[in-house]
Amino acid sequence: MPGPEPDDASIEAVAKRARAASRTMLSLTTDDRNRALQAVYDQLASAKAEILAANEADKVQASERLAKGEVSSALVKRLELGGKKYDGMLSGISSVKQLEDPVNKCTLSREIDDGLQLYRVACPIGVIAVIFEARPEAAVQIASLAIKSANAVILKGGREAEASNACLVSHIRIALRSVSLSSSPFPVDAVQLVSTREQVRELLDQTKYIDLVIPRGSNQLVKYITDNTRIPVMGHADGICAVYVDAHAAVARAVDIVVDAKAQYPAVCNAAETLLVHRTATVESKDSATRNTSVLHAIGVGLAAAHVQVRCDQASKAVLQNVPGLDVRDSTPGDYDTEFLDLTLAVKVVESLEEAIAHINAHGSGHTDAIVTENQDAADRFQALVDSAGVFHNASTRFADGFRLGFGAEVGVSTHRTHARGPVGLEGLMIYKYKMKGTGHTVAPYAEGSKAFKHKDTPHLIPEQQ
Amino acid sequence: MPGPEPDDASIEAVAKRARAASRTMLSLTTDDRNRALQAVYDQLASAKAEILAANEADKVQASERLAKGEVSSALVKRLELGGKKYDGMLSGISSVKQLEDPVNKCTLSREIDDGLQLYRVACPIGVIAVIFEARPEAAVQIASLAIKSANAVILKGGREAEASNACLVSHIRIALRSVSLSSSPFPVDAVQLVSTREQVRELLDQTKYIDLVIPRGSNQLVKYITDNTRIPVMGHADGICAVYVDAHAAVARAVDIVVDAKAQYPAVCNAAETLLVHRTATVESKDSATRNTSVLHAIGVGLAAAHVQVRCDQASKAVLQNVPGLDVRDSTPGDYDTEFLDLTLAVKVVESLEEAIAHINAHGSGHTDAIVTENQDAADRFQALVDSAGVFHNASTRFADGFRLGFGAEVGVSTHRTHARGPVGLEGLMIYKYKMKGTGHTVAPYAEGSKAFKHKDTPHLIPEQQ
Repeated sequence: MPGPEPDDASIEAVAKRARAASRTMLSLTTDDRNRALQAVYDQLASAKAEILAANEADKVQASERLAKGEVSSALVKRLELGGKKYDGMLSGISSVKQLEDPVNKCTLSREIDDGLQLYRVACPIGVIAVIFEARPEAAVQIASLAIKSANAVILKGGREAEASNACLVSHIRIALRSVSLSSSPFPVDAVQLVSTREQVRELLDQTKYIDLVIPRGSNQLVKYITDNTRIPVMGHADGICAVYVDAHAAVARAVDIVVDAKAQYPAVCNAAETLLVHRTATVESKDSATRNTSVLHAIGVGLAAAHVQVRCDQASKAVLQNVPGLDVRDSTPGDYDTEFLDLTLAVKVVESLEEAIAHINAHGSGHTDAIVTENQDAADRFQALVDSAGVFHNASTRFADGFRLGFGAEVGVSTHRTHARGPVGLEGLMIYKYKMKGTGHTVAPYAEGSKAFKHKDTPHLIPEQQ
Repeated sequence: MPGPEPDDASIEAVAKRARAASRTMLSLTTDDRNRALQAVYDQLASAKAEILAANEADKVQASERLAKGEVSSALVKRLELGGKKYDGMLSGISSVKQLEDPVNKCTLSREIDDGLQLYRVACPIGVIAVIFEARPEAAVQIASLAIKSANAVILKGGREAEASNACLVSHIRIALRSVSLSSSPFPVDAVQLVSTREQVRELLDQTKYIDLVIPRGSNQLVKYITDNTRIPVMGHADGICAVYVDAHAAVARAVDIVVDAKAQYPAVCNAAETLLVHRTATVESKDSATRNTSVLHAIGVGLAAAHVQVRCDQASKAVLQNVPGLDVRDSTPGDYDTEFLDLTLAVKVVESLEEAIAHINAHGSGHTDAIVTENQDAADRFQALVDSAGVFHNASTRFADGFRLGFGAEVGVSTHRTHARGPVGLEGLMIYKYKMKGTGHTVAPYAEGSKAFKHKDTPHLIPEQQ
């Protein structure tokens, strides 16, 4: 493996070095960080053969385990770094480089009193640990986001991609070491990799040095991490998304959205797992659009064409069992709390908008839920009262994604209710500090009442470039 | 005690009711919440005699414990609710009522594609548990902030103020029960009180129903809570604030700021505990302002007048031991990591700005630190590289306070590095949700490449009033 690595590999030492690097990152300019990203791009482009050889070793080992039935073919497929994947990984670095610099943005500027000015200025969180599974290109994406946002990152990848991750991070560090800054060397320890499973537990204990943990992977991984650390965690365990087809839904929209939300790519967290249908939508309609059939029947036809299995309550089964070719089963109560991640959909008829909202708030995971309706009042009520990160009206839940929402790059999706919620972009890696500039101001005269505060908000000017 | 209370007092039931109330709070308008605040104001004004009688009982008990040496006189004093305190408590409710409604503020509006519009809209976090010591008026302040921000709150006060807290919360709930809304009764369980110490531990286990825990009180309380919950915690344990007097400090400003930061009110978290002085400031100067004495000597004269004990390294002792009347001791290494909360100050001479920054980042608590200097470059560097929530230039650390910074009301001060940092006002009780409005949009055409995203930011218009 290329390049000298630090001697002390204890997790506390890794975390301590990350903290020190994060402090040095604060002194870098926008240009410094963008030059580092360019260096990473160039290095990964030139080391392609070596990196793909490491990736090949991972793939060979994974294929052997696949033959023994120890891993899934999906896992083996996700390991692939070659071909278009490699180009995509490189262009991802360029995309991050081109994003607006989130550091030093001023979000509040206030005159506290004559000559006493307050600024709230965006700054990096500090040290972020990211624990991810399979996909080795995630290491590059996360490292790029960390460099852009002036954070330090500690990466822990899945063991199936161990050789790929080690080679990638090693070359990222070579690139960072080559960046020449005016004053000091680039803080290479802003990107570090730890590799064993035992180290994860130790990592989760570094409350003094790590500010945020981001798990990216299976439900089990996220739950394990959330249950085993007191460091703030950003992420989501389940993605139990629902589509509610209201009494006033347009048939074609309902069919399109339900089929897209369930079947366009069912293995992801923003795919729908539950379909709630207002009683009215189960009734045969005489209008031309539905031609003597119900909205739910029309949805069933769409789901049959997409090879979706439906798990139904009695009321929805009564309609859907008449759809030719549709795989209809009886639902169990647990089906409405299940993330199938497959072509399976739990279906339930509700008597009202309120019942739909209550069902989602009780059984959903607070990720993304959608209503299909032509009634604006119903949409407003649903969007106000469904207590999820994303509440969509006449649009598929599958839009809940950082790239689709225009965040440029995505750190993950958060179903937590502090810091950041929903798809999280670069902004989710930022916090702020308060800078105040006075001219010798003391609190005493304000406490004694001889002076009073002005508290006058001023334009959000960025203070002197740091 | 007045008014019927719910039967099931198990902590899980309390938390579950809070979650349900928080969901109902989402349907209330700005006016509904302000009317509830007015009802609370009116009820507490009319129940003054009863509340002060309960407070008297707490004070009597505390005085007995004071006589036995079990509690401090400061604690007994903090219990007082009568006189000006009561008026202040009531006017606090009015202040919160008058704050701008933080709910439904739009912070991002983006056209994703034709007919597909994204909004990021502020919404309450949900259920917040606040664990506070002594001061019973805190219960009223926190309940007011929760009502204003449409959150539900579970309060746990100190046992010294048990009767006062119970009476106050009981009357707050009577007031909420009296508010008539157009559709439904006011969700009274948006404000609940739990009273025993054993219930705290149970409260900290309610990860399913509680979104945020805010401890307000001693270092020990905050540490206990942080160490015993996986719910996000907002607050601060230590307030180890430093003032750094730079080589280019103006003498009068240095004296004023150091004395104010240390001595104006030493028992609070934003008071300075450490004084760092550049070597240059220990040297006698010939200019007219200092008249043959050093900046540090001048500071020492100010500290002596304020009865501050200084704990010095060798270099600062050499100067300060010549200040008449100043109580000078040798410092121990631990003094630079100590929150004295008293008229005691650890003093150290540093050789450079960089050494001061490194000392603060290593020994400070990330709360608030100040530099005194006339050199803009030094100030900029200090404010960029000191990794604290507040970094002040030529102003006292004592300004780090929600009221002084114009936040209207303060939930507390956070030294965490996610969600909210520094003095936290109403904004710290908010998160956001993404609302999307489409016209039947599905992801498939974008995934297949037949449609492309526009991602055009639009003015931050508030969507239809919820």
